[in-house]
Amino acid sequence: MQLGFVSAIFPEFSLEQVLSFARDAGFASVELMCWPPGKAERRYAGVTHLDATDLSAGAIKATHDLVAKYGVAISGVGYYPNALSPNLEEAETAQAHIRRVIDLAAALGVGRMNTFVGRDHTKSIDDNWPRFLEVWRPILDHADAKGVKVGIENCPMSFGKDEWPGGKNLAVSPAVWRRMFADIPSPNFGLNFDPSHFVLQHMDYIAPLAEFKGRIFHAHAKDVRIDRAKLDQLGVFAYPNSWHSPKLPGQGDVRWGAFLGALADAGYDGHLAVEVEDRAFEGSLQARKDSLVISRRYLEQFVVGQRGGVGSGS
Amino acid sequence: MQLGFVSAIFPEFSLEQVLSFARDAGFASVELMCWPPGKAERRYAGVTHLDATDLSAGAIKATHDLVAKYGVAISGVGYYPNALSPNLEEAETAQAHIRRVIDLAAALGVGRMNTFVGRDHTKSIDDNWPRFLEVWRPILDHADAKGVKVGIENCPMSFGKDEWPGGKNLAVSPAVWRRMFADIPSPNFGLNFDPSHFVLQHMDYIAPLAEFKGRIFHAHAKDVRIDRAKLDQLGVFAYPNSWHSPKLPGQGDVRWGAFLGALADAGYDGHLAVEVEDRAFEGSLQARKDSLVISRRYLEQFVVGQRGGVGSGS
Amino acid sequence: MQLGFVSAIFPEFSLEQVLSFARDAGFASVELMCWPPGKAERRYAGVTHLDATDLSAGAIKATHDLVAKYGVAISGVGYYPNALSPNLEEAETAQAHIRRVIDLAAALGVGRMNTFVGRDHTKSIDDNWPRFLEVWRPILDHADAKGVKVGIENCPMSFGKDEWPGGKNLAVSPAVWRRMFADIPSPNFGLNFDPSHFVLQHMDYIAPLAEFKGRIFHAHAKDVRIDRAKLDQLGVFAYPNSWHSPKLPGQGDVRWGAFLGALADAGYDGHLAVEVEDRAFEGSLQARKDSLVISRRYLEQFVVGQRGGVGSGS
Amino acid sequence: MQLGFVSAIFPEFSLEQVLSFARDAGFASVELMCWPPGKAERRYAGVTHLDATDLSAGAIKATHDLVAKYGVAISGVGYYPNALSPNLEEAETAQAHIRRVIDLAAALGVGRMNTFVGRDHTKSIDDNWPRFLEVWRPILDHADAKGVKVGIENCPMSFGKDEWPGGKNLAVSPAVWRRMFADIPSPNFGLNFDPSHFVLQHMDYIAPLAEFKGRIFHAHAKDVRIDRAKLDQLGVFAYPNSWHSPKLPGQGDVRWGAFLGALADAGYDGHLAVEVEDRAFEGSLQARKDSLVISRRYLEQFVVGQRGGVGSGS
Amino acid sequence: MQLGFVSAIFPEFSLEQVLSFARDAGFASVELMCWPPGKAERRYAGVTHLDATDLSAGAIKATHDLVAKYGVAISGVGYYPNALSPNLEEAETAQAHIRRVIDLAAALGVGRMNTFVGRDHTKSIDDNWPRFLEVWRPILDHADAKGVKVGIENCPMSFGKDEWPGGKNLAVSPAVWRRMFADIPSPNFGLNFDPSHFVLQHMDYIAPLAEFKGRIFHAHAKDVRIDRAKLDQLGVFAYPNSWHSPKLPGQGDVRWGAFLGALADAGYDGHLAVEVEDRAFEGSLQARKDSLVISRRYLEQFVVGQRGGVGSGS
Amino acid sequence: MQLGFVSAIFPEFSLEQVLSFARDAGFASVELMCWPPGKAERRYAGVTHLDATDLSAGAIKATHDLVAKYGVAISGVGYYPNALSPNLEEAETAQAHIRRVIDLAAALGVGRMNTFVGRDHTKSIDDNWPRFLEVWRPILDHADAKGVKVGIENCPMSFGKDEWPGGKNLAVSPAVWRRMFADIPSPNFGLNFDPSHFVLQHMDYIAPLAEFKGRIFHAHAKDVRIDRAKLDQLGVFAYPNSWHSPKLPGQGDVRWGAFLGALADAGYDGHLAVEVEDRAFEGSLQARKDSLVISRRYLEQFVVGQRGGVGSGS
Repeated sequence: MQLGFVSAIFPEFSLEQVLSFARDAGFASVELMCWPPGKAERRYAGVTHLDATDLSAGAIKATHDLVAKYGVAISGVGYYPNALSPNLEEAETAQAHIRRVIDLAAALGVGRMNTFVGRDHTKSIDDNWPRFLEVWRPILDHADAKGVKVGIENCPMSFGKDEWPGGKNLAVSPAVWRRMFADIPSPNFGLNFDPSHFVLQHMDYIAPLAEFKGRIFHAHAKDVRIDRAKLDQLGVFAYPNSWHSPKLPGQGDVRWGAFLGALADAGYDGHLAVEVEDRAFEGSLQARKDSLVISRRYLEQFVVGQRGGVGSGS
Repeated sequence: MQLGFVSAIFPEFSLEQVLSFARDAGFASVELMCWPPGKAERRYAGVTHLDATDLSAGAIKATHDLVAKYGVAISGVGYYPNALSPNLEEAETAQAHIRRVIDLAAALGVGRMNTFVGRDHTKSIDDNWPRFLEVWRPILDHADAKGVKVGIENCPMSFGKDEWPGGKNLAVSPAVWRRMFADIPSPNFGLNFDPSHFVLQHMDYIAPLAEFKGRIFHAHAKDVRIDRAKLDQLGVFAYPNSWHSPKLPGQGDVRWGAFLGALADAGYDGHLAVEVEDRAFEGSLQARKDSLVISRRYLEQFVVGQRGGVGSGS
Repeated sequence: MQLGFVSAIFPEFSLEQVLSFARDAGFASVELMCWPPGKAERRYAGVTHLDATDLSAGAIKATHDLVAKYGVAISGVGYYPNALSPNLEEAETAQAHIRRVIDLAAALGVGRMNTFVGRDHTKSIDDNWPRFLEVWRPILDHADAKGVKVGIENCPMSFGKDEWPGGKNLAVSPAVWRRMFADIPSPNFGLNFDPSHFVLQHMDYIAPLAEFKGRIFHAHAKDVRIDRAKLDQLGVFAYPNSWHSPKLPGQGDVRWGAFLGALADAGYDGHLAVEVEDRAFEGSLQARKDSLVISRRYLEQFVVGQRGGVGSGS
Repeated sequence: MQLGFVSAIFPEFSLEQVLSFARDAGFASVELMCWPPGKAERRYAGVTHLDATDLSAGAIKATHDLVAKYGVAISGVGYYPNALSPNLEEAETAQAHIRRVIDLAAALGVGRMNTFVGRDHTKSIDDNWPRFLEVWRPILDHADAKGVKVGIENCPMSFGKDEWPGGKNLAVSPAVWRRMFADIPSPNFGLNFDPSHFVLQHMDYIAPLAEFKGRIFHAHAKDVRIDRAKLDQLGVFAYPNSWHSPKLPGQGDVRWGAFLGALADAGYDGHLAVEVEDRAFEGSLQARKDSLVISRRYLEQFVVGQRGGVGSGS
Repeated sequence: MQLGFVSAIFPEFSLEQVLSFARDAGFASVELMCWPPGKAERRYAGVTHLDATDLSAGAIKATHDLVAKYGVAISGVGYYPNALSPNLEEAETAQAHIRRVIDLAAALGVGRMNTFVGRDHTKSIDDNWPRFLEVWRPILDHADAKGVKVGIENCPMSFGKDEWPGGKNLAVSPAVWRRMFADIPSPNFGLNFDPSHFVLQHMDYIAPLAEFKGRIFHAHAKDVRIDRAKLDQLGVFAYPNSWHSPKLPGQGDVRWGAFLGALADAGYDGHLAVEVEDRAFEGSLQARKDSLVISRRYLEQFVVGQRGGVGSGS
Repeated sequence: MQLGFVSAIFPEFSLEQVLSFARDAGFASVELMCWPPGKAERRYAGVTHLDATDLSAGAIKATHDLVAKYGVAISGVGYYPNALSPNLEEAETAQAHIRRVIDLAAALGVGRMNTFVGRDHTKSIDDNWPRFLEVWRPILDHADAKGVKVGIENCPMSFGKDEWPGGKNLAVSPAVWRRMFADIPSPNFGLNFDPSHFVLQHMDYIAPLAEFKGRIFHAHAKDVRIDRAKLDQLGVFAYPNSWHSPKLPGQGDVRWGAFLGALADAGYDGHLAVEVEDRAFEGSLQARKDSLVISRRYLEQFVVGQRGGVGSGS
């Protein structure tokens, strides 16, 4: 496995700054954020390190040149909106841009885009299902046509009042995945596997690796700590933000040695992208940089981390 | 502590049959269900072993006579509707009958009624709060006037599709209790403490006993088992019914020795009413009877169970 | 579930003495041992409380009369030889007598016999399999013809030098059971389920209950303790007798509340026969009697134990 | 094993009342307290159910008659002073009366007395040792002459300010026992084994049973709960009373099934005397009686409890 | 957090040698020992890497120059005597020199000194308290005047015979800290937090971080292993040295990922000084050097370790 | 401790390639495989990085020169055949070559060879014992004469059908070691200690370190994971390969911090040779190289790893 990080941690950086930091900090790859660009016109926007609205040969070449200059791979292109939002404008914006990011993945030759399936958070999973199929069948047809793998992150997107009650992503569990992959059997429909969301949901994150091995297209390295003292006051039905904390890998409840060993046993040899949302490391740009360095050091005891072998790995 | 059971397990029994079984099966008390009576006119009704709409001297005397005949105490009168239902007719029916059950508790000299505070399950706890105060302040005023303790069971009433997402009872956790008792500081406002709901919510049920010792008016003995294999497939945000099973005391995840020892340390010396909802014991009347006998045997290793001493306890 | 015991604990007792003790000690049933009778002619013999070589109307009636006199049911007829012994005489004796015990179960109307499938302990499971099928297919045909359920106990029969290396019973695990029931799909082929053998083999005894629920014909209540200090010196590949001890229910490593709760969830409502092999209770007939009384008391906190209801259960 | 209790729980009872309660409550035996009698003259006195200062034939016969009348055995005679007190008067009183209680055990034919070895709590174990040998060698010589077993309870007698720092009994651990039995090798020097003191000291109470099997003359059934929340605030070097609570058997941290199973494996078949110090059951005489009944019920699932067999055990 | 070490590990080194090693071994800081200097005149002395008796401009400049030369920060100045010793000369020496070390911290601009509050180990905490207040109120007044933070290490200083029974430092637990900070409310009175002392005392070291977050001025990284086999023989009331072993971070019972994650959550971003007392690494100067290198490698997977960012952290 | 690896991972490498990789990858030593060389004539052969059949001065000098060139130590010479094979030719080949490898260890000045004692896997330990003594007494005499330490690896060599039932090495447990060292009391008879084989056998690997401290001549760093889901289906008596997986250090069930801390406490300061058998890293030469780099990184948080001190250790 190669170590990377999710570029959303550096919203103020240009693509070149992201790649430059990655190289200097010893990362082999980056998952680049591709939210719709543009201050003025954008709504529902986020971090944009690659602009999926510009697939011109020049733009693609510029990206390739930067990647070559810094020797850092693109592990995937990422865009995590809510394509099933009850706000129809938001949903349509998301769907349209997901298609563009798929196109970008194809144009760049990366072949991999990561996202959520989304959810109307005011409805149950069953009540979301018909619309899920209606929205996602054509998206996967598009991905099949382009030969791009779509990795769905298993985050419940359920933290506080805004996402209550259902959260903004359906693809949260093995039970849902089986239904998803049975109803939309495209070989390009798979997972961006993040063990921390299993900890949040009080689930085992080891056993599913063997069952879904062919479906794991990308992986995130985030950790969470269940705050027992708070959970004891509030219970699991309270807002999840009130009883858990996102943490750097190794400082939460994920058992990384066991997880990464089993992930390797499942034949996964792709990218592992560190995703930092630890509030203890949000105080400054330097703290965010440090958080990635610490995470890399922690994870390099379990994965080789970089392309090539002994020279780069030492 | 004295052992009793919740009479809802015998919907087909008359009051006398309930008391007769209790005596024969070695129970010291019964919590009697008091749902609004009458097949024709009733909606939102349940089991009625005592009719709170008839507080005539004759009715009260008849109850007292039966209680005396069988030597079984009434641990409390119980009615568990949703007084905060979004269905206003249902809510008003509930509020009015709660008042009647309080009157019944006073008339009988039992002095204790058990219920839920209810919840508009479509709304968050915060969004329920103003209506909770509006509805419950006058009910507690009434209880204060009658000198009746109102024990709120800590059940989240969140099992499946019908109660999704919020469940039908607000009073689920120490955090909520503190807010309840601060906002409605009546000494007659307290708890019908059931440890199984803590297990469901992945919470500690021992530590709150010391803090809320003066507020524990009644206790239920129900157990639940978290079905790990199912939880691993679904996660805690799925319908609770899909990943847990109600069980007889001793056959779930509650550690009864520790719980009852700590409950005694908290000075509680009231009734412990077995509440059976174990589907393995629903097949016949005999199975339901058996489930109570087994539960009594299990619990008698931790509590004396019966009034008086050696003779009855041996 | 009804509580019984395995009659092998009283080799010196007549059938009537066994039944008399069962009644006096509060047991609802007995699994009666049916080894080939007769001091002189017998080899490979054990305890004989019912003589399967005499199926005369008189013998059957005498048994029925005794059973009726003491009000104790026969939970099953038991005979636990090695029908696949490398000693062919031993194997053939076993096979022939198994047939007779099946006939006895039919003649008595008990409908249930318990045994081992046996094993050539010098060979692997695979190498035993062809002979297993050859021997057991006709036995099950016979059981089908007689309408008798054959419950195979899941004991590995691997304790010390004599059974080394493979043990004398193939049917030790869910993996083997699936193969057994697939290759011999008779509805009368099932299990005499004993959780203690799972503890010995370091296996989960809860999960298989749901999968094999229709196959559980009988159950044993034995416990074992893994002797950690000895296991740490010897390892699991040493003779099992050197690192574990059979114990009374509740004094070993089986979690009985969880097991019996899950067994009930699996729909099992048959007999639970206490099997005592605890060396601490072998010193005298009184100690053996006491061990059954203690076991009954322990288990009655989880199962009703006796036929009928409140009266008998109190 | 037979179930009894420590008579100190009933200071207001006469011997006959103690025996009468024991019989009615289903106990097979009682450990009778033998502190020096007499209100006026006594200092350092406690509960006196047998008067060791009167060994007249009449007194002995009266005791035998009462024991016969109620059919309850004397498991041992108990007196728990500090024979090594830095207060020399207290120490000498203790030593002299220990001799008398040994004489009483001989005169009654009980053959067993239970006590502490004591400790000058202001000194270390090493600094107590010379005096320990000086005091106890002649006491054991006396016990040898009388043929009386002296069972030393393993209580550290270290609870609060009064016993700080060293506690008032040296015989707290296997390390100390080995030294005791090596330096005073009398076969009448042994233990009154109480698992709860191991829990208090964060020690394993199972493994020592095998090593000291021949030295276990008597056993106490008391439980304690380590109060984690308090220990987390104070640490193990704070007064033990501030971070633990004595509890009834089954309501603390002792694993009784494992303990009593291993105690039986060690060949112990003597008396198990319930010792109640649970503050939740100190409110009234009835509460104290109840606490013994509950304890008996709890322990009877692991030990037969009473003399004789099926009849008495049912 | 920045990684440093406690300079006491190199008693034979000059200040320059300490700083040189720190730089070469990749440490960002050092806690420098400041015991009273001078072979001849000193009693109660230890390691002296900074001489607090010489606060001349020349001495301060020389220190600053060395620090600048090696680019290693001073995390704090440390002196750990017993200011409450029953030996009054020792106590007064300690108090006077603590003042000097405070002056040194001010003169150097470090602003932080670490020490113990001490304890008369022959007395209880309560009996020490009046003298504690008498001694420490003026010291904190002095610290307030100088603007120096005084970080009290939470070590019980209770290991063997010499410190028996009470240990030589009162500030061992959250319960004591609350009392300390309530009675001496100076903002310069705080903690030098070491999680290993919580493990020794069987306490939780995570929860106090949130409560005392503003009081944590410095932190030590030491580990200890509770030697279960020895504890089982001796119990927690035996000399602590007999049942625990100091170990390098990661080789004892502290869960460092959880601890350092929670320490960061508490807003601590200061120095973490490795304190080595592991007897397996005491054999030679090289072994001591190695122990620091190993410790740094272990801790760098959880903390960035060095000043600056990516360059230094890689 | 110094970090090395077992050279068997690179069968296609020359000695020089092995040493070159070791140096480049940051290892201090290598355990070199010494199976009988030669394609044509060899049977029972394996990897040969040193040829024990050529002890000429030239061969020895060539090895010394290479070792000096790359600055990598030889931790030991290894040859792991079955000297007690039931195939007598295989056994005799093994015995003869073991002698040669001892000679090689002496000639090189390494002084340490590692091997198995072997076992006739069709027989019990007891039945192997006479032949074990007959074979190994003269081998140890030879080792004594040469002054070479023989470290027996504690692997049970029991994985699947080929080694069933007994495995191909007797020296699997402390119980066997005591017998071995008592019957062949040579000071040159000791252990090549690998904690993973304890995990496989469900044994404690910490406690034996203290007892056998003088006997630990070499150590292997391999990890294994018990595959719970498979074990639950099969039980510990099934082929071990069916329920466990060899893994890199840190990705299995060995607790390395605790183990290596205790190994250091036992005074061990020799070599720790990484042995990789993780199937997830067998796909390519690069994957095998990577697996050693990851293992080194993981272990260097617990051991210094390399000769010398700060410079090499940073």
